[in-house]
Amino acid sequence: MTKTILTAAAAAALPLSAGAQAAEPSPPEAMKHAAPALAEYTKDTLFGDVWKRPGLTPRDRSLITVAVLVSTGKSQQLPTHLALALDNGVTPAKIGGLITHLAFYSGWPNAVSAVEVADKVFRERGIPASELQSAESALLPPPENDAPRAAAVEKNMGPISPSLAQLTNGVLFDDLWRRPDLTPRDRSLVTIVALTANGDADQLGFHLQHGIANGLTREQLGEAMAHIAFYAGWPKAFSGANALGKLDK
Amino acid sequence: MTKTILTAAAAAALPLSAGAQAAEPSPPEAMKHAAPALAEYTKDTLFGDVWKRPGLTPRDRSLITVAVLVSTGKSQQLPTHLALALDNGVTPAKIGGLITHLAFYSGWPNAVSAVEVADKVFRERGIPASELQSAESALLPPPENDAPRAAAVEKNMGPISPSLAQLTNGVLFDDLWRRPDLTPRDRSLVTIVALTANGDADQLGFHLQHGIANGLTREQLGEAMAHIAFYAGWPKAFSGANALGKLDK
Amino acid sequence: MTKTILTAAAAAALPLSAGAQAAEPSPPEAMKHAAPALAEYTKDTLFGDVWKRPGLTPRDRSLITVAVLVSTGKSQQLPTHLALALDNGVTPAKIGGLITHLAFYSGWPNAVSAVEVADKVFRERGIPASELQSAESALLPPPENDAPRAAAVEKNMGPISPSLAQLTNGVLFDDLWRRPDLTPRDRSLVTIVALTANGDADQLGFHLQHGIANGLTREQLGEAMAHIAFYAGWPKAFSGANALGKLDK
Repeated sequence: MTKTILTAAAAAALPLSAGAQAAEPSPPEAMKHAAPALAEYTKDTLFGDVWKRPGLTPRDRSLITVAVLVSTGKSQQLPTHLALALDNGVTPAKIGGLITHLAFYSGWPNAVSAVEVADKVFRERGIPASELQSAESALLPPPENDAPRAAAVEKNMGPISPSLAQLTNGVLFDDLWRRPDLTPRDRSLVTIVALTANGDADQLGFHLQHGIANGLTREQLGEAMAHIAFYAGWPKAFSGANALGKLDK
Repeated sequence: MTKTILTAAAAAALPLSAGAQAAEPSPPEAMKHAAPALAEYTKDTLFGDVWKRPGLTPRDRSLITVAVLVSTGKSQQLPTHLALALDNGVTPAKIGGLITHLAFYSGWPNAVSAVEVADKVFRERGIPASELQSAESALLPPPENDAPRAAAVEKNMGPISPSLAQLTNGVLFDDLWRRPDLTPRDRSLVTIVALTANGDADQLGFHLQHGIANGLTREQLGEAMAHIAFYAGWPKAFSGANALGKLDK
Repeated sequence: MTKTILTAAAAAALPLSAGAQAAEPSPPEAMKHAAPALAEYTKDTLFGDVWKRPGLTPRDRSLITVAVLVSTGKSQQLPTHLALALDNGVTPAKIGGLITHLAFYSGWPNAVSAVEVADKVFRERGIPASELQSAESALLPPPENDAPRAAAVEKNMGPISPSLAQLTNGVLFDDLWRRPDLTPRDRSLVTIVALTANGDADQLGFHLQHGIANGLTREQLGEAMAHIAFYAGWPKAFSGANALGKLDK
């Protein structure tokens, strides 16, 4: 645990090249010099408190952090957080799966930039190809009770954009969501994170319910919103948490 | 057509320096290594299917793609997509017009970063200054029936922000929209793309109607939303398509 | 005044390394070549008109511009606008305070990238550590009448995300907002700018009222929306101005 936390503290702001070797427990000199109060919040609040809270495992916190960084295009912070994610137990294949998933949920440009960084991190660590995402995988069985969702897309989106309706049912839900490189629970988690971090309120209600059906608890989602606050800003997290609060109503 | 598609496939992820020479038919090594499933989607779904769909010309798909990249600040993917746009028949003057237009609709910083990349691409291709945007152009005649729009801005925005109302009517609509470097139809298209890609829902209804008045069809706009899904993410495209569906109601 | 305006004109697009020495009165060659109409708007409308309007001081316009750039992650334009902000009377300690504040309101990644640029600008200018933000400062007294706000957060957010509720009251409002490196008025201004530039409509109503309570006038806020239009795009500014217009209703 100590090792993870130390690495995490360093991960906040180390330069791009430091990558996997990050082991310094304190924020970088530039931050301590130009904004020392921010360095204190980074050390005491973000890494000394939030990352240690029991509501989510370090592995889930890494998954959430990387999902924010990929889906909002923050490549600069990605090398150290990918390294931390690997240290926290997120496998290289899952990182490939996360980037592939977020290509659809936050656009190809974010994914293309992220995969370049990830490939570099994987190569620096000497991770063999056998541990990376596989292109050809047997798909998971189609989820039960998916027919109403598919029918609603066809009925509501079909007349507006036949292509978007067809790609949503044929590629997004019947292929991407059935890939085995992420569990449905983790796929829901990174989707919810990307929607929250990008302010995509329209789709959040559906995916929060979908995520709960896939095994995420309300407590985990509430804690995820607090974690997202630090990586995508308070307003996005508050809107996400409010969407979570509206689920019952 | 084959040439365009091959160039397009390469355009997804080639490094910044590859630029106009891009001719490889397959995604880059980094993606094939670290996220091979994403490489398959890029090859089979995005370039092998979506870019070939008949609902929009390759020229319009390039205009849409470049508008997403400029308006969301994705400079890293811009060199190869600018090169592809030129191959697909978007003229250098129109690219200058697009960047100028999106300075207003997505902020100066995105445009300033984009124009630096565009200038480099233009110079590498040896495009003469006579083919580039001209600063001094006779404006198109003012659009008919614009008085109610201008009056609404004055009435509704004038009391809140006199500067914003005056700049909207005096500069945005009475100058920028009347520049001849983009047709009103193309100007509407890149505006709708920028609003959709940035989640600017408040203004989308007006601009969708404005775009239809300027010659865009509902079918083209529906297909544009499917294309945008790949470059700005599914949630933004779904919200945009839903705004399109609400036009009749 | 002339000096400031000349510096401002150059600040629009000079390359990263030009920094504090910026003194050219005209847009860069790349823009004049590839998008000369944009260069004209930059010179005549943005710097020749908007920056000179009397509704806001140059110092406030710099604060607004830097807040947009930091909160939307536009690091490329930051060096010259930080230099301009220093010329316009924004102190180095306030810049550190602004970045610290916007870490919370737009996410750590934006702040971490910004602080690296700021540190470089400060060092190039030879600004002594005594003029920079201080980590250890006596907090301002808690604001009067804050109890209802804190109670509302506890009541509404507590059941959804106990961590987010506790961090909002314990760290955000009871610590960050009480730091002396920004006045409450300036803290409100950069918060409103960040919310507007990022489309965070849900929280804008509260912060506009909070800002007026902290000394911002409606006229200043209306003028700020016109300034934001140029740095975050027209749609974000229109939505922000509409939120301002709804305050009375």
